[in-house]
Amino acid sequence: MYQSFETPSHDHGAARLADLRAEMARRGLDGFIVPRADAHQGEYVPVRDERLRWLTGFTGSAGQAIAMTDRAAVFVDGRYTIQAAEQVDADAFETVAIAETDPGAWLRAAAGEGDVIGFDPWLITPAQRESYEKAAHAVGASLRAEADNPIDAVWPDQPPAPMGSAEVHPETLAGTSSADKRAMVAGALDEDDLDAFVLTLPDSINWLLNIRGGDLSHTPVMLADAVLHRDGTVDLILDLEKLDDAVRTHLGEGVRLHDTPRFLPLLSELKSARVGLEKASVPVIVETTLREAGAEVVWRRDPCILPKARKNPTEQAGARAAHLRDGAAMARFLCWLDAKAPKGTLKEIKVAKRLEQYRNETGKLRDISFDTISAYGPNGAQPHYRVSRETNRVLEGGSLHLIDSGGQYRDGTTDITRVVAIGTPEARHRRAFTLVLRGMIAVSRARFPEGTTGVQIDTMARMPLWSAGLDFDHGTGHGVGAYLGVHEGPASLSKRGTVALEPGMILSNEPGYYREGDFGIRIENLVLVTPPAVPEGGEREMLGFETLTLAPIDLRLVDPALMRDDEIAWLDAYHARVYDALYPLVDETTRDWLERTTAKVAEFG
Amino acid sequence: MYQSFETPSHDHGAARLADLRAEMARRGLDGFIVPRADAHQGEYVPVRDERLRWLTGFTGSAGQAIAMTDRAAVFVDGRYTIQAAEQVDADAFETVAIAETDPGAWLRAAAGEGDVIGFDPWLITPAQRESYEKAAHAVGASLRAEADNPIDAVWPDQPPAPMGSAEVHPETLAGTSSADKRAMVAGALDEDDLDAFVLTLPDSINWLLNIRGGDLSHTPVMLADAVLHRDGTVDLILDLEKLDDAVRTHLGEGVRLHDTPRFLPLLSELKSARVGLEKASVPVIVETTLREAGAEVVWRRDPCILPKARKNPTEQAGARAAHLRDGAAMARFLCWLDAKAPKGTLKEIKVAKRLEQYRNETGKLRDISFDTISAYGPNGAQPHYRVSRETNRVLEGGSLHLIDSGGQYRDGTTDITRVVAIGTPEARHRRAFTLVLRGMIAVSRARFPEGTTGVQIDTMARMPLWSAGLDFDHGTGHGVGAYLGVHEGPASLSKRGTVALEPGMILSNEPGYYREGDFGIRIENLVLVTPPAVPEGGEREMLGFETLTLAPIDLRLVDPALMRDDEIAWLDAYHARVYDALYPLVDETTRDWLERTTAKVAEFG
Repeated sequence: MYQSFETPSHDHGAARLADLRAEMARRGLDGFIVPRADAHQGEYVPVRDERLRWLTGFTGSAGQAIAMTDRAAVFVDGRYTIQAAEQVDADAFETVAIAETDPGAWLRAAAGEGDVIGFDPWLITPAQRESYEKAAHAVGASLRAEADNPIDAVWPDQPPAPMGSAEVHPETLAGTSSADKRAMVAGALDEDDLDAFVLTLPDSINWLLNIRGGDLSHTPVMLADAVLHRDGTVDLILDLEKLDDAVRTHLGEGVRLHDTPRFLPLLSELKSARVGLEKASVPVIVETTLREAGAEVVWRRDPCILPKARKNPTEQAGARAAHLRDGAAMARFLCWLDAKAPKGTLKEIKVAKRLEQYRNETGKLRDISFDTISAYGPNGAQPHYRVSRETNRVLEGGSLHLIDSGGQYRDGTTDITRVVAIGTPEARHRRAFTLVLRGMIAVSRARFPEGTTGVQIDTMARMPLWSAGLDFDHGTGHGVGAYLGVHEGPASLSKRGTVALEPGMILSNEPGYYREGDFGIRIENLVLVTPPAVPEGGEREMLGFETLTLAPIDLRLVDPALMRDDEIAWLDAYHARVYDALYPLVDETTRDWLERTTAKVAEFG
Repeated sequence: MYQSFETPSHDHGAARLADLRAEMARRGLDGFIVPRADAHQGEYVPVRDERLRWLTGFTGSAGQAIAMTDRAAVFVDGRYTIQAAEQVDADAFETVAIAETDPGAWLRAAAGEGDVIGFDPWLITPAQRESYEKAAHAVGASLRAEADNPIDAVWPDQPPAPMGSAEVHPETLAGTSSADKRAMVAGALDEDDLDAFVLTLPDSINWLLNIRGGDLSHTPVMLADAVLHRDGTVDLILDLEKLDDAVRTHLGEGVRLHDTPRFLPLLSELKSARVGLEKASVPVIVETTLREAGAEVVWRRDPCILPKARKNPTEQAGARAAHLRDGAAMARFLCWLDAKAPKGTLKEIKVAKRLEQYRNETGKLRDISFDTISAYGPNGAQPHYRVSRETNRVLEGGSLHLIDSGGQYRDGTTDITRVVAIGTPEARHRRAFTLVLRGMIAVSRARFPEGTTGVQIDTMARMPLWSAGLDFDHGTGHGVGAYLGVHEGPASLSKRGTVALEPGMILSNEPGYYREGDFGIRIENLVLVTPPAVPEGGEREMLGFETLTLAPIDLRLVDPALMRDDEIAWLDAYHARVYDALYPLVDETTRDWLERTTAKVAEFG
């Protein structure tokens, strides 16, 4: 299993906070900032870097703590307020909703004149430091970088850094050689008159070098740092034991290898160079090291992010193949669920395990792309629910089961959500499902001119819900990598989506509806932005979406009376495509099931 | 007539440029910047301030010129490139499309080391100065403020400043007393710790003081400057002869009156105060005078703009009354047009005049709200077309007539566009009209949560066109004032619309389609943002739009086969409302016409 359903017990909050405070006192610190981050600012971090979790018990994917000598707080966003309150020892830590009090505001109240607040310059970005500095200075306090993290000093059994083996991501899958990518990105540096760019985001480095790795759960990256030079060569810095001969040969002469401790000395050699850094993701220590060496620091977006998001034809073909394979596993799973659910004894964990099993049986699964959300009834109303032994609900019937999951295959990353009626759905389930589906279809069918941004597409997904006085409190979609992160920038379909959509980008299309304490709905397909083409009878080129995900949408939950003819036509055509694509790939039982579940809306029932 | 159809002849470009250059030489200037602006940065400027037009012949509503000793250029946006090329003497001035070369880039090429570029600090904003300064400094040139404009020195028959009489805008129309408005805005200054705010936008001052005036065409404002203080009192600076006793009594003790020359001395008295200015609209001389006096300048948005945009219930009722009156005039006009057009002899100017006549015959028209766009066939394909004696096309039949117009009434400002089939429309006309109409209807019916911005609504208007490979190159809508500017911020329905829509805002809803050399379509209603309410069967409060404009939409141009049932239902309901509202207000002939033209779609023909 790639997923664990254990809830880590944690009642060490007060003791560990006391240990940290003792260490702070030894160093003359009045406060210390503990982000949920490693030096690469990714969504997943190695266990060694789970300092926030070790200290506070909080296991969410975003958050931070600040410990002062007399107060301490854990800051979380709206997704995690309930979870944090459950996991964190309230006697030791306040749990603070970041929308109400941001860490800066809290610091202004908690810190005083002359206080010294420590932070780890590997874990904090220049953008974050600026905001902490502003708060500290407002009350006469100051920040101090602690390059050896005080938590590491008091965490006796802290695990070592991960040592996953790197592997070549061959050109047959990547579509473009690393040399070509390096030349292209270096060309952009040259145009911008930059001598070098320091890359610290694993996705960027793995994409640029056509490498993958095994350092993290669910995201197949090798953790490393890199300096891309104007001449297209790269200094790659990592624990060199991760690299076997095949990888070394693949990297070739254009990539110079350095062991981890050489990172800062290498930066110091960039004196008098003009060096690009990404303010929102680079560690503070990279900036300060460069400035001390006399380099000119220039804030820029990581130059790999946009070309990485535009998948080339090989990556697009890989995504189609991965989704076909994944769709067959999903069909097997959904068929199994329909057969077993009527007993009323299935539980959420069992369902998640079975889906992972079927994905595994494709023989191609490298990992799941995130912990599966297997959520029955009221549990589905929490958009970010993760099942554990304690919450493991029985699918007893009369409500909906929501399953949001994905696979990491070498040719592509998948992410799909389906909602299944367990027993006979009620009118309110069907109405909400149909409204969400109409938004999902509107995005699937969208045509839009070049320059259109995600906020514009996001509107299309919400219009049917808004008209009915409903809405959902997350974005409509996120970018998805090519055997990389299942969440990838720069584009998103959301109110904050200000980046233009470009051909080759892969995004999720996942509107939802959540009724607290009752049920939740989310319907998710991945879509690929198609090249400009003039629609029939039109005059201007428009982009559009090709739907990649292939799996039936539960027609028991569709109320055709609430749909328009053109929407029903889309759904019928999608199901015909799903049938044709998956039929050859599944067993006899699943074929029968597929035939029933991909019927035309007018003929279903 | 409020509109003139004469094309000003202009062949003085070279001679006037020579005069300006001679004046520049006398002052030691190597260049001079000539914006199309007065000291209040409005859309309409007094003739006295039409310096760009006097110098270059260009009559558009936006643009600027730069004269160097050996080169000179007129800069215009995409709307005006053709018009400028026709109006400007190409031997004297280059015509430059601002999207290709902005004035800064041109200046970098045209100016050299040591050059002194003059500008009028009353006509340039600090934001504009910054961008000019950057360009000048890049080539070693410098800017110099010339408080007495060199053009005025060589313009022998320059008209005087306008002296329209001010009038009270009574509380029965304004809904809120000036004292209450001043207290409310002053409260916002106090919260922001500002001692005063310098107001230079006429709309803001006229709104704040419940005054209107007659200094400009089409916008009923009194030109003035004002300083609002933290205590809610105002220093009002203008030519005092504009004010009669009634206005002086209305203004009362809280408003101190000062003649125009006292403006700068008054600012100088604000030493050591914290003074708010709007960087994008205040004249540079206001900033420099304050700084020289020792005041602290704080850049803020003009604090009147947002409260002015939220129309109160009295203003909303006024808008409804104005639209009812205007709708009756429109119905009379459209009925007349349908009767006269078949002769094939009507011309665009005649059509515009007749519409103004009918508006005038309401007995309530104070002005038209902008020069009417009366555009037949290919002329309609220019979104900003203005008919003149030279372009005055015959409505010969077989194409479409587009008429975009509005009235200024004391209770409200209107703005409406209708497109009328002249003769029998062809399928391509009906298809395009129906697609535009569907976008217009989508906006009319929109429901959306608080916080939704114009860019999100703009998408709704474009979706039917995008799906067909069509689009239009202007925003979907602009804010509209209450007997003030027909174009008003801060909200807009456009790709740049980042301001949240709020209840009480009035906006236009005017998608279009333009086929160059053939025909143009724009269908425009004004809409009022309605208060939050939970739609039936819903859970969350949504805002929406109430359509204010009342006039039939030409059903001869509607292809019901291209519409959805719910869209047809909206159109039928709108027409039923138009019929009920206008029937009591129009003559017998118009009643018969109204009955035919507001028929249900299924029964029309």
